[in-house]
Amino acid sequence: MSIVSIQFEEGKQPKYIQLFEHIKQLITNGELKPGEKLPTVRSLSQDLNINNITVVNAYKQLEINKYITAKKGSGYFISNLKIQKEDTLSSGDIAMMVDSNAINFASATAHPSIFPTESFRECINEVLERDKGYAFGYQESNGFKPLRNAILEYLKSKYDVRAKNEENVLIVSGAQQGIDLIGKALLNPGDYVITENPTYDGAITLFKSRGARVVGVNMESDGIDVVDLEKKIRICKPKIIYLMTYCQNPTTVSYSPEKLEQVLRLAKKYNTYLVEDDTMSELNFNNKQPITLKHLDKSNSHVIYLKSFSKILMPGLRVGCMILPDMLVKDFTKIKHNSDLSSSGLIQRALDLYFRTGRWEEHLQYMKEIYLGKYEFMLGQLERLKKYGVQYSKPEGGLYFWIQLPKNLSSRRVFLDCKEKGLVLIPSDIFYEFDNKQKDKCLRLSFASSTIEQIRNGMEILEKCIMGLTNGN
Amino acid sequence: MSIVSIQFEEGKQPKYIQLFEHIKQLITNGELKPGEKLPTVRSLSQDLNINNITVVNAYKQLEINKYITAKKGSGYFISNLKIQKEDTLSSGDIAMMVDSNAINFASATAHPSIFPTESFRECINEVLERDKGYAFGYQESNGFKPLRNAILEYLKSKYDVRAKNEENVLIVSGAQQGIDLIGKALLNPGDYVITENPTYDGAITLFKSRGARVVGVNMESDGIDVVDLEKKIRICKPKIIYLMTYCQNPTTVSYSPEKLEQVLRLAKKYNTYLVEDDTMSELNFNNKQPITLKHLDKSNSHVIYLKSFSKILMPGLRVGCMILPDMLVKDFTKIKHNSDLSSSGLIQRALDLYFRTGRWEEHLQYMKEIYLGKYEFMLGQLERLKKYGVQYSKPEGGLYFWIQLPKNLSSRRVFLDCKEKGLVLIPSDIFYEFDNKQKDKCLRLSFASSTIEQIRNGMEILEKCIMGLTNGN
Repeated sequence: MSIVSIQFEEGKQPKYIQLFEHIKQLITNGELKPGEKLPTVRSLSQDLNINNITVVNAYKQLEINKYITAKKGSGYFISNLKIQKEDTLSSGDIAMMVDSNAINFASATAHPSIFPTESFRECINEVLERDKGYAFGYQESNGFKPLRNAILEYLKSKYDVRAKNEENVLIVSGAQQGIDLIGKALLNPGDYVITENPTYDGAITLFKSRGARVVGVNMESDGIDVVDLEKKIRICKPKIIYLMTYCQNPTTVSYSPEKLEQVLRLAKKYNTYLVEDDTMSELNFNNKQPITLKHLDKSNSHVIYLKSFSKILMPGLRVGCMILPDMLVKDFTKIKHNSDLSSSGLIQRALDLYFRTGRWEEHLQYMKEIYLGKYEFMLGQLERLKKYGVQYSKPEGGLYFWIQLPKNLSSRRVFLDCKEKGLVLIPSDIFYEFDNKQKDKCLRLSFASSTIEQIRNGMEILEKCIMGLTNGN
Repeated sequence: MSIVSIQFEEGKQPKYIQLFEHIKQLITNGELKPGEKLPTVRSLSQDLNINNITVVNAYKQLEINKYITAKKGSGYFISNLKIQKEDTLSSGDIAMMVDSNAINFASATAHPSIFPTESFRECINEVLERDKGYAFGYQESNGFKPLRNAILEYLKSKYDVRAKNEENVLIVSGAQQGIDLIGKALLNPGDYVITENPTYDGAITLFKSRGARVVGVNMESDGIDVVDLEKKIRICKPKIIYLMTYCQNPTTVSYSPEKLEQVLRLAKKYNTYLVEDDTMSELNFNNKQPITLKHLDKSNSHVIYLKSFSKILMPGLRVGCMILPDMLVKDFTKIKHNSDLSSSGLIQRALDLYFRTGRWEEHLQYMKEIYLGKYEFMLGQLERLKKYGVQYSKPEGGLYFWIQLPKNLSSRRVFLDCKEKGLVLIPSDIFYEFDNKQKDKCLRLSFASSTIEQIRNGMEILEKCIMGLTNGN
């Protein structure tokens, strides 16, 4: 079998997917060997008598899935699947690869020692005392109703989010599942998604796994570039626009109220959904209440609000929630049911109690206090890097800083250097799916899981690396 | 806008999906009204200058998604979306619709009062004592390693399943998520899946949600009809064949060792995956150790084994597991990660302890004892229905009986009659996606969630209904 032996089937999948699958099979069964060069787009499209674009799209899919690697100017080559290169790492991979002696500026999760384990355990025990076996029975797919009510009340009182009632709330097994459900409900192969550039790489991976085409729009200091956004909406007619409006990951930018209004106006004008992924709005350090798109969407028609409790509470809960526009409630509930029937009833019930007994608010104050100390400390340490030409702006809240390196430094290079010296951080290219002059120029430094001492030592390592590399240049 | 105003886009999605989406939109925005008749396949394909098959496929998708209803001999009509008709219920819907006074022969889950709440609570508390915050940290996507080991040891000792090591085990958030992951990993739109006919309706719904085409093969008394299976494999080249080899849902058929071998041989001959969904093998009442396909697949290459703990332990755990062929481990782990990062670490750790401390085996004995009593009792009661012409065979184990009604009775009619009298059971058409002369002829009667008294009363109601309807005919 060879590449040109493909027989396209009419009316099945788009041709580019058939071609992708065909070549993928040749790679996995070893007929195409690592390092081998693929035919050029032009020659393959001529041989197969198909459009250039079909080949380009198939190659792009292969590249996304790491089956092939593009080498600038010389074409496409079969990847060595056995060796996962650092180029192909995700932010999650990097956070996981921190060994126990290294200082961890990669993970944006608290150290387990400050999780509210004891008070959550009390809730679990109270629930088991109260509900007995019912805590382990099947749950409603859209979530334990009292919890949906508790969350809605909380979000209404805090952010004045819009929703008729608890029917608009969908409990999910973490925000990642929320993104998965959005993909299933709204994306078909070939559909477009617009994201911020840079953005959370896990979201892009997921949208692509649905066969969607993702387009990035650059960030400005007060949110996404709305002029470019409108241009791209017109061209692509995206099904969804995926945004983080408060302390965006990774840039830490918070949207200005004007930007939020502009983005919402565009969504309404072109009738597309906005996905507002909110992980950080509780962790605001300037005492200004964050404004959400969901709040501004008075008709509750265009914003899918997605809330994670992983950063504020504990990642292992595997519970998050969505506030859905009325139109989407039924579809999403069905898709949630098909995905895993329901999220854990026990954890949902315990979390409900955690909210209702004031433990949530109490823990939040505690977490904010701890994080604020680390935030201020890292901010102070960053000051020292300015003399090398490092730039950054002060985020309103959240768990990390986004710094721009001096002109000639590569973030990948700094990353590797720091890693060798025992500090793990995240280089910017991980978050840039699309070209940008900042792509290899920034670092994300999280203080979430480090002690003050570790922050001090980590910043010293970083300073030494930057100093060394700056002098070396 | 009208149906014929559609503008097909080249190289995007298959045309039938574009047509489906177009008509769906006309229905949801009200341009096509409930009750309105759709153009015939022939006239629409002529008007749009497209293939008949494209229209047929689009209409089929609309029908699956309940947007339109086929009326025999008179064509397709827009459904009334507001009223969910009983015709469109799933087995889950029926189990949920049982009100608290009704007797429940629909649900195949134990009553919460016999869940091992207390001993599981001990495990949770022991874990929290031992692991503290780490129980709530991020977990490995493929699952808590000690649990993967514990499960593998258990399955090896009990069913001699094949797997190199715990890397072949993937912890999932319940068996339904397992099916979802299989869909994501192996199915693209247009791919074929073969299932038993009848089968678990939730699996079919999920495969279809991936755009797969599902084909059914009838059941015989010792498993699937392998002659027809081979014929259909040749025609469809399915990506997967989905089977329940022990106490199949709903027919209660257990595969003979010969059938298992034949099915495995076909899978190898035509190089397709077998999905073995095992919910019941622990609940065998004849003291014969069930044989699994996974055990027979010595090379661990063709069987994806999927295990639910919902029926044996508690459905609300939302933890199940898969044993994967070596080839699939990496892909599935990545897809699991994209779906919800990981399953609950706390529950996984508690379940690990539950296994290791012998509580699992203890509870299993307890459950089997309880279920065996109910099984024997319902079996005795069934005896009385024979005189009306009811037929059934004695299952080796499991939680329900599958009975065949006398010639002229409709199972849907019996279902409605019983429901009125306070007994809910599941009529066979729910499980038959494909034509079969038994489609409206059988009932599934579960004893899992009823007391002995309720079984007695329920069987009396059923007898009265059958008697009444038989006399009435």
